[in-house]
Amino acid sequence: MPEMRDDREHALIARLAELLGGGGSQSAASPAVGIGDDAAVTVPEGATATSVDAFVDGVHFRRDTAPPASIGAKALAAALSDLAAMGATPGEAYVAVGLPEDVAEDECLELYSGLARVADETGTTVVGGDVTRAPALFLAITVVGRLPDPDAFVGRDGAEAGETVAVTGELGGAAAGLLLLEDAERAGAVDADTAAALRTRQLEPTPKLAAGAALAAAGATAVIDVSDGVAADAAQLAAASGVGIELELEEVPIQAGVAEVAQAAGLDPYDIALAGGEDYELLAVLPEPRVGEARRACSAAGVPLTPVGLTSAEGGVRIRATDGLRRPPPGFDHLRRLPSRGGPG
Amino acid sequence: MPEMRDDREHALIARLAELLGGGGSQSAASPAVGIGDDAAVTVPEGATATSVDAFVDGVHFRRDTAPPASIGAKALAAALSDLAAMGATPGEAYVAVGLPEDVAEDECLELYSGLARVADETGTTVVGGDVTRAPALFLAITVVGRLPDPDAFVGRDGAEAGETVAVTGELGGAAAGLLLLEDAERAGAVDADTAAALRTRQLEPTPKLAAGAALAAAGATAVIDVSDGVAADAAQLAAASGVGIELELEEVPIQAGVAEVAQAAGLDPYDIALAGGEDYELLAVLPEPRVGEARRACSAAGVPLTPVGLTSAEGGVRIRATDGLRRPPPGFDHLRRLPSRGGPG
Repeated sequence: MPEMRDDREHALIARLAELLGGGGSQSAASPAVGIGDDAAVTVPEGATATSVDAFVDGVHFRRDTAPPASIGAKALAAALSDLAAMGATPGEAYVAVGLPEDVAEDECLELYSGLARVADETGTTVVGGDVTRAPALFLAITVVGRLPDPDAFVGRDGAEAGETVAVTGELGGAAAGLLLLEDAERAGAVDADTAAALRTRQLEPTPKLAAGAALAAAGATAVIDVSDGVAADAAQLAAASGVGIELELEEVPIQAGVAEVAQAAGLDPYDIALAGGEDYELLAVLPEPRVGEARRACSAAGVPLTPVGLTSAEGGVRIRATDGLRRPPPGFDHLRRLPSRGGPG
Repeated sequence: MPEMRDDREHALIARLAELLGGGGSQSAASPAVGIGDDAAVTVPEGATATSVDAFVDGVHFRRDTAPPASIGAKALAAALSDLAAMGATPGEAYVAVGLPEDVAEDECLELYSGLARVADETGTTVVGGDVTRAPALFLAITVVGRLPDPDAFVGRDGAEAGETVAVTGELGGAAAGLLLLEDAERAGAVDADTAAALRTRQLEPTPKLAAGAALAAAGATAVIDVSDGVAADAAQLAAASGVGIELELEEVPIQAGVAEVAQAAGLDPYDIALAGGEDYELLAVLPEPRVGEARRACSAAGVPLTPVGLTSAEGGVRIRATDGLRRPPPGFDHLRRLPSRGGPG
């Protein structure tokens, strides 16, 4: 197709390919052809899990608050989070990038270096891509993961009533980090290390790949990654499985500093924790007898697993607090509120 | 990730999934999970060829001249053209779409219906995707094709000096069609059927999948799809293979009406044919003894194969005409010249 292809652009693509060449030599499949041919050739074993995610400036990130390396890192991490939720092992990634005129070559290389770092850390090989001009910076990342067989994955639709709902790690950190990036004065509410951890949580999330594999092995009946906020993601899992979910508000693990930053921003800390999104933790449903094993397996994978509720026969998500039922907060889509950007309406 | 997810948008995504559900029941792999879970699960046999392409409003198409259905159809066709060039059989597609606020639901459904039509015609199953807000309409399409084994594909780098260079179908039609879409008065240069064929060539190209498989089976040493214009694509193939290519100008097959439309637009018809791009034909290199078999195989696949030159030891692309050597035209990137759009500079 007609796109950028003068000598300067060809040179940029060659540098990007070079940058990505080092990533993911641990990959299970052996790509026979990489960047530069019409398509990449792989020899998948077992079954594959494939997911695509798009990331758009002003919707999923903001170039004015996110360093270029973190944009690339977060885009790949968020895409890989879908593989984590399936219990799949990362294989290959294919990266389409739309570059506006005002993205300098250095900025583009930094973006790819962040992406390459996450690829390297997760054993993902970037074997294909496309670079084109676009009015706004975007990335569309397709990730391919491996499963030992087609029945080995954990979907969203296998939960039954009376099972335990649990979440990995801690929630709210990514949203609190965004609140700090939007207004640096809010950092006064916490110490410097806590603030830095919250910002990192927003800018460079870690896909919970080992925990996802552990949950699949431990017999989770349904898993979803916490990308839109645990309340919204629980609602999706509940609808897919045809069950309800009762969350115990005070059981939800909240990252250190979230409460203080939320209060500094005039927001309810629990709204941040329930609806903040972008934490890329995993929400899992397990038969009660498997919970202990799952907690030990996640712990061995370096991530705590905390029971936060139960599935029920009655559909929808209900949030129980010691002071009574709470209404699930709407999706905390901060970017919808940005005045000058093209966020969703 | 935070993105469109109010009820209206969930309903749209459900309708899109429904629209795509009918496509490609002929697919070789059996997706166990489709749209709606974190990832799609497939069980690939043999080897896979995977390619991603991005299509951006103002760069690869224009919403003001391209009907929505043709935008979806062309995007998938162009992505599949990369699989054709590898000799692969289409399997699955993953479609990420960025929607600006002013794209109405009907327009979006039309776009997907065009995409679903091409999926159906080519045996492609759309099993995954992502829909997000974006400042400009874009699609990023990942296509996965099948190969019997990892050595069965035809890359760009296998050509040797002294082999025959051949092209499928006819060239220049897509660029001439664009000239008609840009200025309807130019259609006066040709009859109505010819004008309609040129417009269709621009708006709804056909990936040459059967011809690609035929060329692979007939022993082609290198194949590339003609997306940027045969001169530019020949240069890419030549560079990848470490050979030169001598094209015989008058042997290049040109679609009916291209010469007249080019003249009406004040352009050189051969520049259109050599550099027009977007014809999505295949440029193949074959050892001379295999040319007859390849021509018969392509003909059986419904596409003529025309020898247009030879590979040589001296690198680069040279174009020979009866009146002497011609300088290869620069890439005919029409969108770079658009005054009001964000095409590449």
